[in-house]
Amino acid sequence: MIKQDLLDCHLRIKPHIHNTAVLSSRLINTKIGIEVFFKCENFQRAGAYKIRGATNAILQLSHTQKSKGVVTHSSGNFAQALSLAAKNIGVPAHIVMPSTAPAVKKVGVMEYEGKIYECEPTLRARQEMADIIVKQTEATFLHPSNNENVIMGHGTAAMELLEGQPNLNMIFCPVGGGGLIAGSALAANYFGKDCTVLGGEPFSVDDAYRSLMSGKIEGNETTDTIADGLKTTLGDKNFPIIQKHVQKIVRVTEAEIVDAMRLVWERMKIIIEPSSAVTVAALIRDANENPSIYKDKKVGVIISGGNVDLNNLPF
Amino acid sequence: MIKQDLLDCHLRIKPHIHNTAVLSSRLINTKIGIEVFFKCENFQRAGAYKIRGATNAILQLSHTQKSKGVVTHSSGNFAQALSLAAKNIGVPAHIVMPSTAPAVKKVGVMEYEGKIYECEPTLRARQEMADIIVKQTEATFLHPSNNENVIMGHGTAAMELLEGQPNLNMIFCPVGGGGLIAGSALAANYFGKDCTVLGGEPFSVDDAYRSLMSGKIEGNETTDTIADGLKTTLGDKNFPIIQKHVQKIVRVTEAEIVDAMRLVWERMKIIIEPSSAVTVAALIRDANENPSIYKDKKVGVIISGGNVDLNNLPF
Repeated sequence: MIKQDLLDCHLRIKPHIHNTAVLSSRLINTKIGIEVFFKCENFQRAGAYKIRGATNAILQLSHTQKSKGVVTHSSGNFAQALSLAAKNIGVPAHIVMPSTAPAVKKVGVMEYEGKIYECEPTLRARQEMADIIVKQTEATFLHPSNNENVIMGHGTAAMELLEGQPNLNMIFCPVGGGGLIAGSALAANYFGKDCTVLGGEPFSVDDAYRSLMSGKIEGNETTDTIADGLKTTLGDKNFPIIQKHVQKIVRVTEAEIVDAMRLVWERMKIIIEPSSAVTVAALIRDANENPSIYKDKKVGVIISGGNVDLNNLPF
Repeated sequence: MIKQDLLDCHLRIKPHIHNTAVLSSRLINTKIGIEVFFKCENFQRAGAYKIRGATNAILQLSHTQKSKGVVTHSSGNFAQALSLAAKNIGVPAHIVMPSTAPAVKKVGVMEYEGKIYECEPTLRARQEMADIIVKQTEATFLHPSNNENVIMGHGTAAMELLEGQPNLNMIFCPVGGGGLIAGSALAANYFGKDCTVLGGEPFSVDDAYRSLMSGKIEGNETTDTIADGLKTTLGDKNFPIIQKHVQKIVRVTEAEIVDAMRLVWERMKIIIEPSSAVTVAALIRDANENPSIYKDKKVGVIISGGNVDLNNLPF
């Protein structure tokens, strides 16, 4: 994935996505003591950055592949993103969802005309169901984060952020499956001026932190976090990029996540999901621990999404 | 208040306020069937449009008046707005607040260095306390809505909206004390192209609706609404403007308010307070009842504020 690949990718998906707003908050800048630029992918179509990678991956399929459609398994944002991206391009989308997925997520997929296949809520059952659909329909399986075209698509959010703020010193991303931070790291590498990329991750699912330490992809023993988008683990396509280009991963507590979420909701009046609050919390923690590093720095934060269940808030 | 007065007012307050974003939602446009432009005063400093009028009123005081400070009584957004506006200009602010005002509002006033005077939670006690402070400090009393300089300041939100969208056919505002809708009506009259202004009001506090019917300022027998910013009644300065320039007031139920609030939170990912949801609900109701009037129209909505208590949400 060279610089031109990312430029081509951005041009390719532009008609299908929003170039989302970049917001700042005087109050939050004063509180943290640095200048922060929030790239608001919560305002993205389907409420999260994931339509970027989904769109790029579909547009890279051959005509024959497109006609047979795409398959994924997801209980969250990628299910809706792939359904909408497929609808925009005119391609069928088959979505395997665990039977435990919230009704609101299923409704989202249906609104975007994705075909839902329910399965048992285990990773194995999800993969088996996806395999059957691939076999029956000859549709192409698209992984939400461990796919080069998805990674590049996800990286376009950081590209747009750097277009407006070319002098950013750092960019913070959440780390779940690793697609967003890998894409952002490529974007910072090619389009930033000495811009480092840092990840935010909950202590309770700190597989990426441990993977960087051990040098191999680690799993999680529990998935007990409010940040429901960050429970997944890294993949062989994105891990090498993260190893090469991500400076460090900052871990945060559940209480820090909720505090950061409340701070952004109350002060910026925008709705961010817990996975995005992880990133804000990581910035606050790291800036508190290393004030000399952050002095006079400009920091970008990828607000990954705003899909929350209003009936089940942590406040 | 002529056109030049509003232009002067806008120039005067510009350094102290944000020219807030105007957002649209493809999904909401499709749902309502018209093109809607949301002027996001929830992103305004102190979280609401009120700093516009507060700033203009303070800047119009003489040097001597400024040195003695300003007084108001408010349990809500105007208390914080006047405190911040006074702080920005370097003027003392005395804020009379009912003892029942939420702690979060008092903290807001204190953060902006306003001096709080607690009183019994009746309109009479509030006015008496304000009178005493005026007597003791010679500070100037500023009414949150029934003051020409406040009305003009509040009208600059609609001016900015019309700068970006000069062809709006209608602008919807919430109606509480009447300052915002009166200012918006003046702005639409001077800067719009045949742009009408409509108000949104809860059925349970429909004093403005009844005032337009009867031709005199009416009160409310109860204040039982979730839209806590709209419980106040019109004043002799803004009522004549409303009579002359406001086309009609659309009343909405409490359920419609909560539904509209949820729609905007879920679909636009921005936090709006119930008083702002009233305006969205009024647009939805009126567009449903009069589809032919709304066909191919461009409609502006003033999102008045985003100050909600996250511990006490209606979801």
